[in-house]
Amino acid sequence: MNLKLKITEMQRLSVEEFRESRKLPVVVVLDNVRSLYNVGSVFRTCDAFRVEEIIICGITACPPNIEIHKTAIGAEFAVRWRYFKDTEEAVNVLRSEGCRLYSVEQCQRSILPNQAVSESKGGKVALVFGHEVKGVQQSVVDLSDGCIEIPQAGTKHSMNVSVAVGVVVWEFFKEFLPQLADKSAR
Amino acid sequence: MNLKLKITEMQRLSVEEFRESRKLPVVVVLDNVRSLYNVGSVFRTCDAFRVEEIIICGITACPPNIEIHKTAIGAEFAVRWRYFKDTEEAVNVLRSEGCRLYSVEQCQRSILPNQAVSESKGGKVALVFGHEVKGVQQSVVDLSDGCIEIPQAGTKHSMNVSVAVGVVVWEFFKEFLPQLADKSAR
Repeated sequence: MNLKLKITEMQRLSVEEFRESRKLPVVVVLDNVRSLYNVGSVFRTCDAFRVEEIIICGITACPPNIEIHKTAIGAEFAVRWRYFKDTEEAVNVLRSEGCRLYSVEQCQRSILPNQAVSESKGGKVALVFGHEVKGVQQSVVDLSDGCIEIPQAGTKHSMNVSVAVGVVVWEFFKEFLPQLADKSAR
Repeated sequence: MNLKLKITEMQRLSVEEFRESRKLPVVVVLDNVRSLYNVGSVFRTCDAFRVEEIIICGITACPPNIEIHKTAIGAEFAVRWRYFKDTEEAVNVLRSEGCRLYSVEQCQRSILPNQAVSESKGGKVALVFGHEVKGVQQSVVDLSDGCIEIPQAGTKHSMNVSVAVGVVVWEFFKEFLPQLADKSAR
């Protein structure tokens, strides 16, 4: 028998403990993400992977918001966030705060998520994810140190943005797992 | 300048080409997934990662469905799928078809996604993902060869199921990328 864990066995953090915990040195930037469900889903993933901060830009909606709550299910109370009207300004501020900047986009010179993890050597990174149809703005790509691409081998041109956040942040989280595995470790 | 690719530069497959293409030897099983948006999002991810088949079980809705289409955006026309009323029956059929079976669940003896990739050594696998609240049924876990867990270090007890599909299938897809990179390679 391989029994499913009970919720009490999962040893999750309280919101207070989360706020004081050591974070993954990753900031997730949302460049004009339209769907409130996607924003909520990103909060939930960033809670699970203990992301340092979400930077909400442009038309992307901020909490508190009932539609965000439907997919964040409370993760929006744990993960720290800031809002910038202008994504270019946000990216410049993040650089001044010591972040290496990656746009997650299909570009001429993109690298794989795991290559970005190696390249950033444990330093703080900001990962920019874009609008559901238009992607990350070219002007923001131009301000980035590089582009990360999730290779795709199907018929559609892009992935869902909240799934893309999950895949890319997971690659960084994997590396930091031993260091984050304090209370949440089993 | 690191220019964003134009859609014509992405060299995606047509639906016909997709159907005839070499697939990732992964089958995604949805055990009573409630949300139509999640089902659609899973189709879109399975298109991108060229998954062999989606097995739709129980209360999980099947295409064609207008709500599934909103997040699948046509991926439901490319990816092959079958419906089983009973997930246990589906899992038994998949085993008879040569699949190694993993439930994606938080269990007493779970392994990491990358460990499952090593363990399955390129053979065909079926990955079972469960209901948004209840997860994979214990009876289906009991029929599995093992459990895959995405470690989580936050406040919430689980991840969004469509994000979990993205993370786990990505780990398998990464290994197969060189073999799948025919027309979709750049």
